[in-house]
Amino acid sequence: MDPNVLHNLSYGMYVVSSCSGSKLNGQIANTVFQITSEPVTVAISINKQNLTHEYIESSRSFSISILDESAPLPFIGKFGFRSGKTEDKFKDTKFEISKSGCPIVLDHTIAYIEAKVIETLDYGTHTLFLGEMTDSKMLAPGKPMTYSYYHETKRGTTPPKAPTYIKGEAPNKGDAK
Amino acid sequence: MDPNVLHNLSYGMYVVSSCSGSKLNGQIANTVFQITSEPVTVAISINKQNLTHEYIESSRSFSISILDESAPLPFIGKFGFRSGKTEDKFKDTKFEISKSGCPIVLDHTIAYIEAKVIETLDYGTHTLFLGEMTDSKMLAPGKPMTYSYYHETKRGTTPPKAPTYIKGEAPNKGDAK
Repeated sequence: MDPNVLHNLSYGMYVVSSCSGSKLNGQIANTVFQITSEPVTVAISINKQNLTHEYIESSRSFSISILDESAPLPFIGKFGFRSGKTEDKFKDTKFEISKSGCPIVLDHTIAYIEAKVIETLDYGTHTLFLGEMTDSKMLAPGKPMTYSYYHETKRGTTPPKAPTYIKGEAPNKGDAK
Repeated sequence: MDPNVLHNLSYGMYVVSSCSGSKLNGQIANTVFQITSEPVTVAISINKQNLTHEYIESSRSFSISILDESAPLPFIGKFGFRSGKTEDKFKDTKFEISKSGCPIVLDHTIAYIEAKVIETLDYGTHTLFLGEMTDSKMLAPGKPMTYSYYHETKRGTTPPKAPTYIKGEAPNKGDAK
């Protein structure tokens, strides 16, 4: 078994956001994918320890901001390597509040999707949330950042709590600064 | 709601193969993703009408061949736009039989993953199969083909039965030749 194989699976780079009452949070996610086309259903894998997980369970809704290749590492670091438990990630972030009451991150975002949770699947360290798309909008022209672009061109790393973390891969604390 | 947003989600290009007794089949899939890292669990979304779906249900195992950017359209057409119900897709394909008894496609393949099904989730037109990785191997250097590379550089299209099909997008029959 060669874990390096997993580096060859392709993903995008997204901010998944949610809320609990008036509290907002969001996190970087790369496992976002469409599973059916009619109705449009998307699935996301979120670590149970993350605050966003708690908020999605609370509000039963989430948004997906599709990041542009130009999104800088400090921005990814804020949403990917820091926790909303200790800071307000939305303080210096451009966002809007959707009809669901939850935030949609607009910084470095090409397009967004909003979804309501239709099923929650418990898989050990992570939950797979299945959501039916309730809204979607194109915001700006741009090229969606892929996970490999993030690793190879941006020289970004993956935190241990990510579903696609590969054992032995060390997080680069520098990304979060 | 703008369905064009969905074009900005990122995926790879894979052949997912399985078997039923000595019968072999495989199909192009793009919704392949890791959902947990310990143990390594992957999820795939497969249309219920596909023969591969029937074989995965029968053998409870599948392989994922990660395609190289060099994979030609006729090869993708064979696995993506034609059905194993009417032809033997493995006739002119390089493959090996794994310990599970099921095939692994080796043509234009950078690396493969084998998995045993640990859960089957019914979602209308598609089933989400969750599999625990039982084997994986790097085969050749190369760049994994992404779904956007397939669309933008190869000028490939998406069949209506794919989980990521977007209504109004017409399949190009030419791909299958």
